[in-house]
Amino acid sequence: MKFTPPPASLRSPLIIPEKIMMGPGPSNCSKRVLTAMTNTVLSNFHAELFRTMDEVKDGLRYIFQTENRATMCVSGSAHAGMEAMLSNLLEDGDRVLIAVNGIWAERAVEMSTRYGADVRTIEGPPDRPFSLETLAKAIELHQPKCLFLTHGDSSSGLLQPLEGVGQICHQHDCLLIVDAVASLCGVPFYMDKWEIDAVYTGAQKVLGAPPGITPISLSTKALDVIRNRRTKSKVFYWDLLLLGNYWGCYDEPKRYHHTVASNLIFALREALAQIAEEGLETQIKRRMECAQILYDGLGKMGLEIFVKDPRHRLPTVTGIMIPKGVDWWKVSQYAMNNYSLEVQGGLGPTFGKAWRVGIMGECSTVQKIQFYLYGLKESLKATHPDYVFEESNGFH
Amino acid sequence: MKFTPPPASLRSPLIIPEKIMMGPGPSNCSKRVLTAMTNTVLSNFHAELFRTMDEVKDGLRYIFQTENRATMCVSGSAHAGMEAMLSNLLEDGDRVLIAVNGIWAERAVEMSTRYGADVRTIEGPPDRPFSLETLAKAIELHQPKCLFLTHGDSSSGLLQPLEGVGQICHQHDCLLIVDAVASLCGVPFYMDKWEIDAVYTGAQKVLGAPPGITPISLSTKALDVIRNRRTKSKVFYWDLLLLGNYWGCYDEPKRYHHTVASNLIFALREALAQIAEEGLETQIKRRMECAQILYDGLGKMGLEIFVKDPRHRLPTVTGIMIPKGVDWWKVSQYAMNNYSLEVQGGLGPTFGKAWRVGIMGECSTVQKIQFYLYGLKESLKATHPDYVFEESNGFH
Repeated sequence: MKFTPPPASLRSPLIIPEKIMMGPGPSNCSKRVLTAMTNTVLSNFHAELFRTMDEVKDGLRYIFQTENRATMCVSGSAHAGMEAMLSNLLEDGDRVLIAVNGIWAERAVEMSTRYGADVRTIEGPPDRPFSLETLAKAIELHQPKCLFLTHGDSSSGLLQPLEGVGQICHQHDCLLIVDAVASLCGVPFYMDKWEIDAVYTGAQKVLGAPPGITPISLSTKALDVIRNRRTKSKVFYWDLLLLGNYWGCYDEPKRYHHTVASNLIFALREALAQIAEEGLETQIKRRMECAQILYDGLGKMGLEIFVKDPRHRLPTVTGIMIPKGVDWWKVSQYAMNNYSLEVQGGLGPTFGKAWRVGIMGECSTVQKIQFYLYGLKESLKATHPDYVFEESNGFH
Repeated sequence: MKFTPPPASLRSPLIIPEKIMMGPGPSNCSKRVLTAMTNTVLSNFHAELFRTMDEVKDGLRYIFQTENRATMCVSGSAHAGMEAMLSNLLEDGDRVLIAVNGIWAERAVEMSTRYGADVRTIEGPPDRPFSLETLAKAIELHQPKCLFLTHGDSSSGLLQPLEGVGQICHQHDCLLIVDAVASLCGVPFYMDKWEIDAVYTGAQKVLGAPPGITPISLSTKALDVIRNRRTKSKVFYWDLLLLGNYWGCYDEPKRYHHTVASNLIFALREALAQIAEEGLETQIKRRMECAQILYDGLGKMGLEIFVKDPRHRLPTVTGIMIPKGVDWWKVSQYAMNNYSLEVQGGLGPTFGKAWRVGIMGECSTVQKIQFYLYGLKESLKATHPDYVFEESNGFH
């Protein structure tokens, strides 16, 4: 036996600083959630793991407001949740209509194309939702098998109303797939009442759990479509018939599918327990109040919001327009170096145009919002001494 | 806002008992590894995350014994590692040869078939490796683009020698894909010297990290094949050109791909640091010594090993034949209930025929092996009073 020597880089200790993660996710987790991960890793058929998975399913049905049995987690990031839905619901040549006004819908286009679907799109500006009329017309025109909509777009901070969309879809024998990664638990969401067929959300966003595991839910309609596929879905890892079996969704004896990330399941369980203890209504109201305080504070500093119409703002993610003459990166760096505060830049439609602030996880308190406003102000002041902190200051 | 009430099941506290995880993985993690997960979740472009990822890459190159730049992690279980390799290296109609003698090769057949590959197999018994001659003949016959081999099969405890296979593959313009999920860090492995083109391993196995993240590495040859694909790989989530870019493998500016599981990366970093501190050679010798003590102890109890020829045994997973008249499940239950000890049953070829014991992670000490032997003996005694603890006891 002879080996090359071990790398020097691993000799120093792992030091990860505490940071206030107020970008559009991942957000900060509570100590309770983080500590849950230090439990013993469990193997696939241990009773305590199955019991915890059942509790996670209960919690997910609550936050999705659904009775869907096919409610489970994909072992991967929210992108994996998106792919799981598209790869299960689409077969070669199936038509999917994607409403594109932000980066996540663009990803859905990319994924669906790779899976061989017939991809149709409607495009809209990143700061205005699609109207029911626009969606209805597009569905009539394209007659797709599925419509893909982003509920809350973390690249812009836009909120897409969903009421009525499911009903229109179902009049045209179309399934409704919704990306609720950045919105769930920040605004009301009713999977069953709104007739949504497939949804996924981000653990590391509003829920306040760590990334790497993604909650999903499927309606009976969507499950029927999957059960009646002409071909097996292309990806074994997120075959929702096999995965749902392992998660105990289908009244069948459980079979091994893959080794789930038990410690992420423990953490997610605790995040869901915290939501259940506080109650969805209180959580959502709290985030909406935080958002209002943020908007008011930004206004007083002469800062504008990317989504102009307050009705279309996602409370959990706000795009803050970068004033004329301001170097956004300098401000972000200053905030991180001096306040351990994440003042994150834009992505997709907001790249170089806006910062993005998240009201998610543990960062959804008035105290944290005030600290963000303070940190942003001080960082702007320090890096741009000429900036005037007044409404209508001419910097936009 | 009106919601259904929160589920009652989330009202009770999360209680996960301590267990001695001596099945074929997941194994127990060290406190240091588990505690690493309680660090702040980091966002995608934080310097500390990139630095930790670089350290992980250094550690992985060390344990794979490679200089491959395309060394990174897939955000998913080891199954995701397998799919990442197959979906990137195979296009519709591409021929892959899979050497099947255990459950992992069967999975590779299933996955490759779903991806539309032309799948050829050679089959062998689960307790005997493929010879170089058999493999060479099959490669000559089928002329595949890739050969898939399992290095250490956790369903049987079989070790497949790899020396010379890469050279044969490359004489026939074939890439060698190796599943090293259960073997890496338990037996010598030389990716570069043995000319292996694609490998993945399990974080939660010998390495002693939690599940949910999977180390992989690609040779220059394999990377060239991916770069020259006629079509994009089907799965965006594990497109290794995009993922490798984000992991900083290709000398390009880094682009966002998906939100990595930062806390699993922290844990894996610490597991790799522990391996680097002890050294590969010492680790492997320790596990081989543990295996010898296990074999001797089992022999004295009249228990036989699934893989008869000691040269073909994987030291990290041992199949223990269930003696005639013994109810394996009763023994396993007794061991768990009385000793918090996992005495796991079989899978695939060993299902109902053998227990499987792992020498992985924190369970690779003489003390743990002695405890396993003790726990197994006491459990057998308690549940089967007639069993005779002697060599050649007629129970096989």
